[in-house]
Amino acid sequence: MEVNKGVCYGVGVGPGDPELITLKAVRVLTRCPVIAAPQTKSGEMLALDIVRGAVDLAGKTILPLSFTMSQDKGVLQAAHEAAADAVQAHLDRGEDVAMPNLGDVSIYATWGYVMEVLNRRGYETVMIPGVPSFCAAAARLSATLVSWGSPLHIIPVGKGPVAPLVEQPGGKVLMKAGRGLSEIAQALGRTGQLDRAALVEDCGLPTERVWTDWDRLPQDVGYFATVIVKEES
Amino acid sequence: MEVNKGVCYGVGVGPGDPELITLKAVRVLTRCPVIAAPQTKSGEMLALDIVRGAVDLAGKTILPLSFTMSQDKGVLQAAHEAAADAVQAHLDRGEDVAMPNLGDVSIYATWGYVMEVLNRRGYETVMIPGVPSFCAAAARLSATLVSWGSPLHIIPVGKGPVAPLVEQPGGKVLMKAGRGLSEIAQALGRTGQLDRAALVEDCGLPTERVWTDWDRLPQDVGYFATVIVKEES
Repeated sequence: MEVNKGVCYGVGVGPGDPELITLKAVRVLTRCPVIAAPQTKSGEMLALDIVRGAVDLAGKTILPLSFTMSQDKGVLQAAHEAAADAVQAHLDRGEDVAMPNLGDVSIYATWGYVMEVLNRRGYETVMIPGVPSFCAAAARLSATLVSWGSPLHIIPVGKGPVAPLVEQPGGKVLMKAGRGLSEIAQALGRTGQLDRAALVEDCGLPTERVWTDWDRLPQDVGYFATVIVKEES
Repeated sequence: MEVNKGVCYGVGVGPGDPELITLKAVRVLTRCPVIAAPQTKSGEMLALDIVRGAVDLAGKTILPLSFTMSQDKGVLQAAHEAAADAVQAHLDRGEDVAMPNLGDVSIYATWGYVMEVLNRRGYETVMIPGVPSFCAAAARLSATLVSWGSPLHIIPVGKGPVAPLVEQPGGKVLMKAGRGLSEIAQALGRTGQLDRAALVEDCGLPTERVWTDWDRLPQDVGYFATVIVKEES
């Protein structure tokens, strides 16, 4: 007898605070018997920890997925195929799988790679949008990122020069900014934007720190640092 | 006897589907006795309608706020001051007020203007982030907006030329694109991006429509149309 294949859901779970999960994400995560969670090398599963704060995981199968930080395209592709293999084994048994992702699932999300492989193999996938980390960072700072009429630029830090992007008009968000702070500060200073810029580290997590004074930034700002540059008023 | 002043909460309620409200937004909206809702000229309160799908409003005071579509700075400022006046009357009685906003509260949100006036007058405000409409549009299309390393540009349509912004590298989102579709299509065509672009109208609402074929766009695309342009792969 044919078994109907399961569906794989990519679920945005927001930036860190379990209360910033949507009602839809809670429903989908509650209904799926398998939760496939990205796992770091050290064994941490941050997206799963967020889910745990809002959804009862008792009785569910937890499927840790390992992704690599390698820049090698072949190594990356192999990791995505292996993650899809692990998910597929459950889909083939007719089990629905939910894969929680930090923030939203369409912006810099691991989900995209897994979805691509699963779609290519003929499996059904569904995306549940979430609150991006930069919206939470703006809320934390009580800041409007951008008002009607101006563009908003989301800029990843660590691949290529950021200065040309930082120096254009409009609101700006710099993601994973921890390692590029001196280049960012220089570009902001050159264009008179330092007094409109602020930094939030680990937004919504217990380790959260906030700076609005660029002369007082410490040396040890971590990976999940977001710089918010409000548009000129 | 002094009454403690109330707090005004700006609450992002997501793009339209009441299930895309966060747990935190539900809690805040449930706890506040006064809901201040933006109202269009025709009397519609779209953000309030979304809230109604997830929160019991029985017994609450509903405070309709009128905003103008005027381009005149004086007229705009007067409307924002009047909205703040209406909210302030409740805060002065010690009542907390929640103001729901479509999408997120930091991106093109009416909330920003009200917050500015209230803060200037010495009132406490708190922002609750929400799911932006463009994240829901990407999810609706099962599309990754942008993967790590590329910028994402959010571009408002209707003020100034959009072509220079559309033609730069990275993922792009064009907001309220209904009235600029021919300029957008031309810029996308010139830069070979039409096959990576799609349009979602009224995302998540019963009137939702989706197009991926730019040769088949109808003439009557409405105001709340979002164009998604995936980054080049």
